[in-house]
Amino acid sequence: MKKRTPAVETAVTMAARQRDISVSEFFLKNRHLLGFDNPRRALLTTVKEAVDNALDACEEAGILPELAVDMTELADNRFRVSVTDNGPGIVRNQIPRVFAKLLYGSKFHRLRMSRGQQGIGISAAGMYGQLTTGSATRIDSRVDGRRAHHIEVQIDTRRNTPAILKDTETDWQPLFPKADGGALASGHGTCVSIDMEASYVRGRLSVDEYLKQCAIVNPHLQLHYRVSLRPKETAPEVNADAAEKAPPAPEAWTTFSRASGELPKTPLEIKPHPHGVELGLLMQMLKGSEARTLKSALATDFSRLSPANAEAICLQAGLDPKAKPGQIAHHESEALYKALNAAKLMRPQMDCLSPIGEDLMIAGLKKETPGAFYAAVSRPPAVYRGNPFQIEAALACFQSGPGSGEPSADEPVQVLRFANRVPLLHQAGGCAITKAVTSVNWKAYGLSQPRGSLPLGPVVVLVHMASVWVPFTSESKDSIAHYPEILREMTFALQELGRQLGVHLSRRDRLAEQERKQRYIELYLPHLALGLRQILSLSEPEETRLRDRLRDMLERSRTDS
Amino acid sequence: MKKRTPAVETAVTMAARQRDISVSEFFLKNRHLLGFDNPRRALLTTVKEAVDNALDACEEAGILPELAVDMTELADNRFRVSVTDNGPGIVRNQIPRVFAKLLYGSKFHRLRMSRGQQGIGISAAGMYGQLTTGSATRIDSRVDGRRAHHIEVQIDTRRNTPAILKDTETDWQPLFPKADGGALASGHGTCVSIDMEASYVRGRLSVDEYLKQCAIVNPHLQLHYRVSLRPKETAPEVNADAAEKAPPAPEAWTTFSRASGELPKTPLEIKPHPHGVELGLLMQMLKGSEARTLKSALATDFSRLSPANAEAICLQAGLDPKAKPGQIAHHESEALYKALNAAKLMRPQMDCLSPIGEDLMIAGLKKETPGAFYAAVSRPPAVYRGNPFQIEAALACFQSGPGSGEPSADEPVQVLRFANRVPLLHQAGGCAITKAVTSVNWKAYGLSQPRGSLPLGPVVVLVHMASVWVPFTSESKDSIAHYPEILREMTFALQELGRQLGVHLSRRDRLAEQERKQRYIELYLPHLALGLRQILSLSEPEETRLRDRLRDMLERSRTDS
Repeated sequence: MKKRTPAVETAVTMAARQRDISVSEFFLKNRHLLGFDNPRRALLTTVKEAVDNALDACEEAGILPELAVDMTELADNRFRVSVTDNGPGIVRNQIPRVFAKLLYGSKFHRLRMSRGQQGIGISAAGMYGQLTTGSATRIDSRVDGRRAHHIEVQIDTRRNTPAILKDTETDWQPLFPKADGGALASGHGTCVSIDMEASYVRGRLSVDEYLKQCAIVNPHLQLHYRVSLRPKETAPEVNADAAEKAPPAPEAWTTFSRASGELPKTPLEIKPHPHGVELGLLMQMLKGSEARTLKSALATDFSRLSPANAEAICLQAGLDPKAKPGQIAHHESEALYKALNAAKLMRPQMDCLSPIGEDLMIAGLKKETPGAFYAAVSRPPAVYRGNPFQIEAALACFQSGPGSGEPSADEPVQVLRFANRVPLLHQAGGCAITKAVTSVNWKAYGLSQPRGSLPLGPVVVLVHMASVWVPFTSESKDSIAHYPEILREMTFALQELGRQLGVHLSRRDRLAEQERKQRYIELYLPHLALGLRQILSLSEPEETRLRDRLRDMLERSRTDS
Repeated sequence: MKKRTPAVETAVTMAARQRDISVSEFFLKNRHLLGFDNPRRALLTTVKEAVDNALDACEEAGILPELAVDMTELADNRFRVSVTDNGPGIVRNQIPRVFAKLLYGSKFHRLRMSRGQQGIGISAAGMYGQLTTGSATRIDSRVDGRRAHHIEVQIDTRRNTPAILKDTETDWQPLFPKADGGALASGHGTCVSIDMEASYVRGRLSVDEYLKQCAIVNPHLQLHYRVSLRPKETAPEVNADAAEKAPPAPEAWTTFSRASGELPKTPLEIKPHPHGVELGLLMQMLKGSEARTLKSALATDFSRLSPANAEAICLQAGLDPKAKPGQIAHHESEALYKALNAAKLMRPQMDCLSPIGEDLMIAGLKKETPGAFYAAVSRPPAVYRGNPFQIEAALACFQSGPGSGEPSADEPVQVLRFANRVPLLHQAGGCAITKAVTSVNWKAYGLSQPRGSLPLGPVVVLVHMASVWVPFTSESKDSIAHYPEILREMTFALQELGRQLGVHLSRRDRLAEQERKQRYIELYLPHLALGLRQILSLSEPEETRLRDRLRDMLERSRTDS
């Protein structure tokens, strides 16, 4: 081997090597940050990103969503994933950037609850497909009353821009399977299809589990899916090439039927609340304001600030309410920042959130996990770093028994985590929800709980965080960061559920005890009465009367105790 | 309150709201991803990013690094952080982008071990300072033989570009404290200074702990630091304003002295290894290749491919070695990809790595944690996703006893985590190192270990991963992702340490047992000899001889047993 010696660098040689890093290159190298670290997770992440986008689009357009998720194993470790929706469609000139440019979208810059927020997900899935199979993302989309577009795109990762490989008009219509085996066409919708290295495994982290939980918290969703696998070969050596070319026969569709014909309440967009805005951001907002005076800048660019309020705050900060907002000096901004934070203001308005609601959470749990006892809590909305959020939680407790097929009393409770109606499957360990469930003292509510662990018992716990901005611990959006305000709200919700569970469990224990006593009375009373009749020589009617009075008496003493 | 109803969207209205998201805006909103979720962690992250950059620059320029980290509490929850180094300096026109542009740097695009890799860190610290205090990042930098530059920059977050607020030439020189209280000037170096919302707390996640661990794995580093806090007020209401204006008196410097006058071996840059390159990347590399034939493209753009090898692989894939690399079709690339992966090739060369080495790990542990028993292991280099990496581990085991001030036998072992010589403090739970330590069966080596937890005992475990690309679980670079190849190497290293620890512990137990027996012999032998002398009426010399022979005999039987 040749001996290599490194050159010693100087400030000048080092400067020559400095260059821009495109955001696509960054995430290509760091694809585990986006949820593409292995073939199994890549399949789930892709389905998740496509389904999230489809649901957001349908709801914004006021359309009851219908989705078809189709996964076909093309070859060893290679799948085609296609997700079709009946959404409003995407206009032609947006398609390339929506599907082949990271950090592009409509949801990042507004304060309003939605599933997507970063403008990364679906383009990242396409980029992963491109990286592992060299293929392009294929999109069919049709806006109502227009012809459909078929577009194939790749990402130019060096520049984070779309490269269009195909662009035609077609008569495509989205098709959804009917129960009788036929198909129903929609006049509008989108289908995105990506070939990628992927693998399909059932279980707790599977696409099936994700879609099932999706149906729980989105009762207005009609969802079809299928996984078509290649036949397992008996002699893998022989016909490998032939088998690779033959696609598998498509499987039958599985459908989660729509349970509610009503769309969730549409959340509204809000302006930032003064109490959550950092000094630097305040300065930037003032510089960029279109208002002509400081007072009107405050009143129009922020929520919860009336003109009178705004004027009082200016005076409090020693500033002229009629000053030009773009000409406020640094130390003046600091004074304004302090005055804003000291002012008593209404909390942020909450119509930017669309919680699931206690009834629907219980209905969802009942549908997928029929059980004995349910409880649900919606906390009042709260605020972290100026962002409104709301925590909801629900719980199902089973009558656990051997052979019941229900979760065992000796196993940790099952925790279902959701953020803005999206199920979170991966990275449970780092999630604020797991931390909150672990930190509650469940022993006080009748469950056993090893120190620092999840409680044990035949219980399913569901926690949902709705917010205009969910602080995820990574771009793959699997786990909620540990902001203290968020943890506190989750803990309160879980404690409230715990109290209800405790009442249920102690009532159940008491009822069981009563039943046992009741059975004793029923068992021994006739013998006792017969004995008394013989001792006291009573007639048969007298014995009956005595027995009834005895029962009354015993019963009273039992229920009094 | 006005009733607000949301507009129903269409494909056209939705398209109008789509727009670019700048990477600065993205990370400003997601600043917890970068390690700026709370004031305490922000202080640590800022010091860490500045120190990492300074060490990288010094080593690349062949300069023995000397650093001064100065933290001053300016007001409640507000600090000025200044880090000065004696590095090569930064040329004027690079300064604004290095310190005020995310995703800009020299380390991302090369395959070579370094502390920084993303081109985000120090600009993110400046952005956080700007967000929380509205101030600018101040940089002084001097290249040897030139005048110094003083530059003040902010990030224009909408466009992710630097905005230069000040730019002057000065006579600045970096100064480092001397032991006698004076200061020593260097002819070259850089100082970055940022004002930010921060708080200083001692303990396991503190700046002190970070710097201490830094000194352990960088014995060639001379490091000074100080934290100057404002005096605690007895009546906080009274003089609040005055106190806010008076900066605290500077504290004395703490110094970690340089223990080795030798720089670590400089790592070399390598080309990608064919076995770690995905199909999509292969296609992109062929398209962008400057070579004239496929064969020479393979031989020059990849490592470990000789021209003969490259030709054989082309033929194996059914391709003409003289084909133009830019004109290889999709299905041809697939064939080439398969042939490359099937070919037997040498493993990637490892001179791109600069491990710490067993001796220096033990020396580092001894310096900061003097103890009774040490062991260290350097694993042979390995590869994940085509990236060379190497795992090293070391261990110190104390004689634990009450009042010894050493870690207790009932507490979990202390795990020190390092990646490319950088200490990792946060997010221990999600880190591959923690997972590896937890998954080893330490009971086999004489430590007790609760199921699924860290082992207990008076032990410090150090694990270091050196790689051209460390896969962190988030941009804050606190925790290593769970790639199976990495976990496996860590486990092997820890098992080897465990075996050595087990030998030590069982020898220690045996020695203690021997000592106990020895003490018995010493205690009873004189009495026995005296008794025998009386019974047998021996003379004193005879008794002495008898006692010696008895001791020999007993001693032999003891050591034989």
